Amino acid sequence: MLLTAIYLVAIAAEAASGALMGMRRRMDLFGICFIGTVTALGGGSVRDMLLGHYPLGWVAHPEYLLFTVGAAIAAALLARHAHRLHGIFLALDALGLVAFTVIGCNVAESANAPLAIVVLMGLVTGIFGGLARDVLCNQVPLVLRRDFYASVSLLTGLLYVGLQRGGIAPGHATLVAVPAGCVLRLVAIRFRLGLPVFAPPGDAKK
Amino acid sequence: MLLTAIYLVAIAAEAASGALMGMRRRMDLFGICFIGTVTALGGGSVRDMLLGHYPLGWVAHPEYLLFTVGAAIAAALLARHAHRLHGIFLALDALGLVAFTVIGCNVAESANAPLAIVVLMGLVTGIFGGLARDVLCNQVPLVLRRDFYASVSLLTGLLYVGLQRGGIAPGHATLVAVPAGCVLRLVAIRFRLGLPVFAPPGDAKK
Amino acid sequence: MLLTAIYLVAIAAEAASGALMGMRRRMDLFGICFIGTVTALGGGSVRDMLLGHYPLGWVAHPEYLLFTVGAAIAAALLARHAHRLHGIFLALDALGLVAFTVIGCNVAESANAPLAIVVLMGLVTGIFGGLARDVLCNQVPLVLRRDFYASVSLLTGLLYVGLQRGGIAPGHATLVAVPAGCVLRLVAIRFRLGLPVFAPPGDAKK
Repeated sequence: MLLTAIYLVAIAAEAASGALMGMRRRMDLFGICFIGTVTALGGGSVRDMLLGHYPLGWVAHPEYLLFTVGAAIAAALLARHAHRLHGIFLALDALGLVAFTVIGCNVAESANAPLAIVVLMGLVTGIFGGLARDVLCNQVPLVLRRDFYASVSLLTGLLYVGLQRGGIAPGHATLVAVPAGCVLRLVAIRFRLGLPVFAPPGDAKK
Repeated sequence: MLLTAIYLVAIAAEAASGALMGMRRRMDLFGICFIGTVTALGGGSVRDMLLGHYPLGWVAHPEYLLFTVGAAIAAALLARHAHRLHGIFLALDALGLVAFTVIGCNVAESANAPLAIVVLMGLVTGIFGGLARDVLCNQVPLVLRRDFYASVSLLTGLLYVGLQRGGIAPGHATLVAVPAGCVLRLVAIRFRLGLPVFAPPGDAKK
Repeated sequence: MLLTAIYLVAIAAEAASGALMGMRRRMDLFGICFIGTVTALGGGSVRDMLLGHYPLGWVAHPEYLLFTVGAAIAAALLARHAHRLHGIFLALDALGLVAFTVIGCNVAESANAPLAIVVLMGLVTGIFGGLARDVLCNQVPLVLRRDFYASVSLLTGLLYVGLQRGGIAPGHATLVAVPAGCVLRLVAIRFRLGLPVFAPPGDAKK
């Protein structure tokens, strides 16, 4: 199925993003493979643990780990050329975010979760890998600070669920939601879209 | 039921505390809603995942998320007045800590956990939301460093469980333990009670 | 059983390592007991939540918590002598890492996990406690940065699983894998073995 192929590309892209971040924290070979794998598979794992949905994807399919470890090592070896591949990388990351979102919605639907939770589990699948990556790299998660990233996941999930509620079959809804989400993310990157940031109170102490 | 009403106030107070901390890390609108929700619902979620108690509260009741997101946004909008509301805020936070503790004990009791685990699950429910908030904000969790905060949760749980062991019905035990815990927390704040801190060994390296 | 005795020594050693790290972050008495317990029991807890293997060990056996809390307090009281005990401490930590690994493999085997996941669950049991300790202490986890530590866990798991596949009974495989893993770890410490670290790309920004 197409979504599985996209999924494998997506976990490879996310693993590469984790590996590149790990290198900047001077992680060793194990650290880079580990953080790449956590970045790629962490979102789905958290989703499944929140839902009590066992076995986890990579426990049933340990061969996924070959993709994440392979992509992490490849990213580490090619890192000096990373700036040249930046555009491709952003595009793959956008595809990954959107594919993770649709897959997360699917899993929550199959667990008979309420509609709001279906959309939320798309979001969890989309962003928790990057969250875990940033926590392990000892920085405030990027996705909480700026960029139109989590919002793309939420809007993609809403579109996907909305289409199904309108009578569209899941497969067709996927064919609409995935390209739409990718375009939205790329538009957000191109025009530097972001959400408002509130000025912290000057007198806040704690 | 009274405890449910207290619970909704408590998750709103915790969400506000998460949102205020997120603002100081310059999180955007999504980040503030997210960290508020994690602060409010993280403790109960970790407890349920540790116990294998499914479905999680907010998965079965996604309407709780309206409270946490609403409170997070309200806190962000009112943040410049936060110092004036500081007293109210501390009181609500104390109520939240104690209510979370009693609810956590209840859930563990209904899962037939051993007595020690019942008290511990009260503690997990009480403090893990704040722990997750601090980890996402990239700081050593406050609750591990100072203050008589986790101790209030432990003592409230012990009192609640002890009363039941003494033949008091859970509802009545709640009516005693919740006010007692709140008073203890407010006394601790007023008199700056804390636990001892050990001096780290001057020669420790690692 | 011998492995249980080793396990109790191992969780005490890990709790002590957590407590010492917490002291350097100026944690109070509660914080030190908490981080010691998370360091000791976190790996097994994450493993069980990933596998959906309930109840967790310490939920069924809350008496384990007496070991972790006791060891954490003892470590805090003896911290000024910690440098003199450094050698003993490293040996106990090596034993802990290897024992956790074998126990983790056992649990995954009993859950009928695929072979690769059995080895991986040994690793998760071995390193996630230290990972959680470092995240709570607000630093990039040591195990991801240097040292031949995670690698010892992986190799011990591979040896343990390989021996069983070769027809050796689990008990006998344990008697080979645990000493072999300890020796490997101590050799790694003695000769400062480590994995390669990739130079981060000088031009990387993000």
